[in-house]
Amino acid sequence: MTQMRKDVFSGRWVIVEESVAVRPSEFQFKPVTREAKFCPFCETNEASTPPEVFAIRPPGSRPNGPGWSVRVVPNSQPRLRIEGQLGRRGEGFHDLMNGVGAHEIIAETPRHDLALHELPPAAIADVVRAWVARILDLERDPRMRHVLIFKNHGEEAGAHTISHSISQLMALPITPRIIKSKLMTAREYFHQKERCIYCDVLQQELRDGTRMVAENPHFAVFVPFAARFPFEMTILPKAHESAFSVIKPDQVEALAHILRMALQKLDGTLGHPPFNLSLQDRPFLRPRMGYWETIDADFHWHLEILPQIVRVTGFEWASFFFYNPVPPEVAARCLAAQRCD
Amino acid sequence: MTQMRKDVFSGRWVIVEESVAVRPSEFQFKPVTREAKFCPFCETNEASTPPEVFAIRPPGSRPNGPGWSVRVVPNSQPRLRIEGQLGRRGEGFHDLMNGVGAHEIIAETPRHDLALHELPPAAIADVVRAWVARILDLERDPRMRHVLIFKNHGEEAGAHTISHSISQLMALPITPRIIKSKLMTAREYFHQKERCIYCDVLQQELRDGTRMVAENPHFAVFVPFAARFPFEMTILPKAHESAFSVIKPDQVEALAHILRMALQKLDGTLGHPPFNLSLQDRPFLRPRMGYWETIDADFHWHLEILPQIVRVTGFEWASFFFYNPVPPEVAARCLAAQRCD
Repeated sequence: MTQMRKDVFSGRWVIVEESVAVRPSEFQFKPVTREAKFCPFCETNEASTPPEVFAIRPPGSRPNGPGWSVRVVPNSQPRLRIEGQLGRRGEGFHDLMNGVGAHEIIAETPRHDLALHELPPAAIADVVRAWVARILDLERDPRMRHVLIFKNHGEEAGAHTISHSISQLMALPITPRIIKSKLMTAREYFHQKERCIYCDVLQQELRDGTRMVAENPHFAVFVPFAARFPFEMTILPKAHESAFSVIKPDQVEALAHILRMALQKLDGTLGHPPFNLSLQDRPFLRPRMGYWETIDADFHWHLEILPQIVRVTGFEWASFFFYNPVPPEVAARCLAAQRCD
Repeated sequence: MTQMRKDVFSGRWVIVEESVAVRPSEFQFKPVTREAKFCPFCETNEASTPPEVFAIRPPGSRPNGPGWSVRVVPNSQPRLRIEGQLGRRGEGFHDLMNGVGAHEIIAETPRHDLALHELPPAAIADVVRAWVARILDLERDPRMRHVLIFKNHGEEAGAHTISHSISQLMALPITPRIIKSKLMTAREYFHQKERCIYCDVLQQELRDGTRMVAENPHFAVFVPFAARFPFEMTILPKAHESAFSVIKPDQVEALAHILRMALQKLDGTLGHPPFNLSLQDRPFLRPRMGYWETIDADFHWHLEILPQIVRVTGFEWASFFFYNPVPPEVAARCLAAQRCD
């Protein structure tokens, strides 16, 4: 038997099995293979990438040399380029603009043999600091409206060309649809209640507990009520904040800990599954964004962890509807029980 | 270099390469394997499925026996069930309802060794007739709001459990988000212009020609301006019509011909790629759908063919934005030139 569940933040529906249709032990994944061939993101190979735009290095260490813990470089085959004007234009009915933006690669570690969740918490905190630094820098470019940060782990999740542990950043001249629709929902709710919908749902999840995976003083991790993917997780800061980039130093440490814990639990529960990670942040505040003037009150940034363990089929593409064979409450119970170091 | 293109029907953006980043010859697919093991959708195995709800059979042939050309049965492991009430309810902030709907399997041919595009046009016309018959029947159920018809061809597109050539039907108690957003856009356009946006774009595509793949007196096939997937195609009826189910007999024949041609061109151009096919139809007209009262004027049904030849990654999931490495104009040129029988 199934239920249809509605995601309160985006309005999309998901068909969710009421009892487990696929057991965690039925999933089989091959461990991420990291070939021994030359890798431009490894320490000492810095000359093989475009010059770095940011790095965390000990005092005295020189840009584009070894010694870094996190290093950010422009993608050498970018999907969007930093040069040029947007050139918004029409072609009859069609709207287009030049592919202007930024596309950067964050090397999360100088070592080729470690995944993000295998790094010590202090190293993950450096990755978070690199994300923040790049967002703050790109916010100064008036052409940009939004920064996406995402990670592909494992071949099936899209990490088939680069095996080094990286995340990616794209600065966009527009606000993505998913973010827009979340903003609109949050705004309508705030208009009615004068409260943030994310804060309210978080309180309910903490009280109810059946979908909670882990928490610490600054963050909570839970399986969303209408999870699209089996074992999907949301990481939400407990304090209300629309913009990721104003995160405070003690929150950075706490985020590193909880992200590491969530990813280790996922890795242990399913046996090294591929996954995507994404930051869902508010757009940059710009003039002429009138209808988002309450954005700082209504939106609430979060991270999404999306295990890629079932195939997306014609059903999803036809409808942008999802089918989840694992009840979120069962997934939460497995993840919460999973030990991590 | 890339362009950002906006899909005029749904409002989503796609990053499109201006020159070919991946050549058709670089794609490699293994042909669809059809194992010899027992298949409940093959002729003479009718007793292994739930009783048929529709079939096209010669006079004298008996239900649930051999002799059919197309046969529709309920899915034995349905994602939605036909029994029971919706039971719309809340759990605190969350909305849910019972998984009520229909989930049916359309066996497109009694033979296990043929794909949809390998059938003669008359057999494909029978598949179209089966789709229409099932929609008309399900429309009478007041709990249903929308019917999705889709097809998964090849393992990577989701056909990993059933190798017989089938399509699937799901009747839903809600209207999917993608359809809703297309309806809204079409409605706004009609409100401004008193014309259908699909009719207008079709005229422009026919005049311009650079994205056209094929046409006949009743249908046109083109690569959409903001195609999400390389070699994506849209099949649009030339005469304005919001509801697929009122298709006329000569249009059924013409649709069978053009669908066969489009799928054969795809198969030949890329060497047997996996793909999804989906019908994008208007919802059923129901009381209390006030804001869709002009639906028959604004919407225009169509089919989408979505080749599954590049991986969806964290970028797409983070943003519902797409990256297409093959310019739609190049894809259209390859497809238009491809011979078919």
